[in-house]
Amino acid sequence: VAGAFIYRRRVQFAETDMAGIVHFSCYFRYMEEAEHALWRAAGLHIATVDEPVGWPRIASAFEYRSPLHFEEEFEVSVSIAALTRRTIQYGFTFVRDATAIGAGTITAVCVRKGPPMKAIELPADVVARLRAAAERQSGSPADGVAP
Amino acid sequence: VAGAFIYRRRVQFAETDMAGIVHFSCYFRYMEEAEHALWRAAGLHIATVDEPVGWPRIASAFEYRSPLHFEEEFEVSVSIAALTRRTIQYGFTFVRDATAIGAGTITAVCVRKGPPMKAIELPADVVARLRAAAERQSGSPADGVAP
Amino acid sequence: VAGAFIYRRRVQFAETDMAGIVHFSCYFRYMEEAEHALWRAAGLHIATVDEPVGWPRIASAFEYRSPLHFEEEFEVSVSIAALTRRTIQYGFTFVRDATAIGAGTITAVCVRKGPPMKAIELPADVVARLRAAAERQSGSPADGVAP
Amino acid sequence: VAGAFIYRRRVQFAETDMAGIVHFSCYFRYMEEAEHALWRAAGLHIATVDEPVGWPRIASAFEYRSPLHFEEEFEVSVSIAALTRRTIQYGFTFVRDATAIGAGTITAVCVRKGPPMKAIELPADVVARLRAAAERQSGSPADGVAP
Repeated sequence: VAGAFIYRRRVQFAETDMAGIVHFSCYFRYMEEAEHALWRAAGLHIATVDEPVGWPRIASAFEYRSPLHFEEEFEVSVSIAALTRRTIQYGFTFVRDATAIGAGTITAVCVRKGPPMKAIELPADVVARLRAAAERQSGSPADGVAP
Repeated sequence: VAGAFIYRRRVQFAETDMAGIVHFSCYFRYMEEAEHALWRAAGLHIATVDEPVGWPRIASAFEYRSPLHFEEEFEVSVSIAALTRRTIQYGFTFVRDATAIGAGTITAVCVRKGPPMKAIELPADVVARLRAAAERQSGSPADGVAP
Repeated sequence: VAGAFIYRRRVQFAETDMAGIVHFSCYFRYMEEAEHALWRAAGLHIATVDEPVGWPRIASAFEYRSPLHFEEEFEVSVSIAALTRRTIQYGFTFVRDATAIGAGTITAVCVRKGPPMKAIELPADVVARLRAAAERQSGSPADGVAP
Repeated sequence: VAGAFIYRRRVQFAETDMAGIVHFSCYFRYMEEAEHALWRAAGLHIATVDEPVGWPRIASAFEYRSPLHFEEEFEVSVSIAALTRRTIQYGFTFVRDATAIGAGTITAVCVRKGPPMKAIELPADVVARLRAAAERQSGSPADGVAP
């Protein structure tokens, strides 16, 4: 994926289910991990106790192509798929070697935490830094992969 | 929801995150719990080791309206939203008292497990029993709710 | 178990692993669910945002006897196993019908949240109410069990 | 820790709870991840579908010293703490920089899967390879740590 940040991960045992594959809910955790890795690559931190701005999710979705199994290594490409004044949608593509695993999205709204919580405009510098980090295309090959 | 099976649940502590609300990935587990409760209400079991037929997910999605917090009780309405020859889509609506929490879908394909795994037509009796169970509208008020 | 609160639960699909049984880490979640159900039975709430007192864990352990499988119903007996001035140890016993599943403990310390966080003496009324709730021996048969 | 394999990890958002720290049950997943990383470092795989030998847990325990927070990096040292004819006990020590986070154990029994499942003697070569891997003291600095 051009202009996408790459997050590498290995399947852990607890993420499998009795069907012998990764449980379908785990892909939402994987997407979030990739999102937060992108934020760190941008020199940002999405969640801090003192931070007045938060990013609650308003939608998330995933389409499954091939299953993942215990110990398999896979790559998550994360990019900024869509922006509105107050929301950001990340797009994620999962591959294991040449195999398409699936693809999904997370849509988050920028809020002032309050109370009361209130949707606000996306901070321009945050968007710019996330975009730049996605363009730089990932960190080290071993990120997120246990030996 | 007319013709929907009701699954009742209470939020557990481990399902919350540092934002003080239920983590967005947990809604996919909640949807699956409701799906399986519907199967049991229909006198069926979705997953058995010996069963030659399986129901892998091909898509899932959720739209978030209001957050859930620790110990809150909520209801999940599950219905059959769409059918194709080989796939079933469940629709889920979450409410806490009069508050809309969100709504989502899980789409599963019917397969002969193999190997090789192969998509097959939905068993007509399974569909009929799931529909009938959804029409009967839920089990006891305390289902899935710890005291 | 005499003087124990009973928490009833059904195994959910996402709690199984590729070995076809409940993942060993889930028993710690089950113990906590039973602990919190005991608190509710005592008319108490262990975690609230505004509450100045907290109960962080200092130790937990489990011994496994027989595995649990998808959809099985089981009972968790929770009792107060030991008290010190500042700590409470809960004891848990798991059974499925007549089968011993395992047993474990959670030890929590009572703290004033701070900052700085500071261990304090157990509130006498909390201990008395938890003891009384354990003596009353559980709520309704269907608690925590989805249909 | 002398003779211990080091597994490096970063706290993910979904592992936190409403108290703002890593949920106490996650440490059992972290211990297992470190165990499996040790197996891989030994050129072994603990779980395969075709493998006739399995390693169910018979006990696990953890003592908590300091909490972990979102995005913190920590190290898990894993060593072979005790052996009997049929069981292996791993010992784990968690540190974040110079801070002791906690320590725990997992005890597993070697079984022929069956049915019926039957405890068998530890394979000598497996024990030798795990010991050798623990002596070699870990892989690359970035293992298991997302950027």
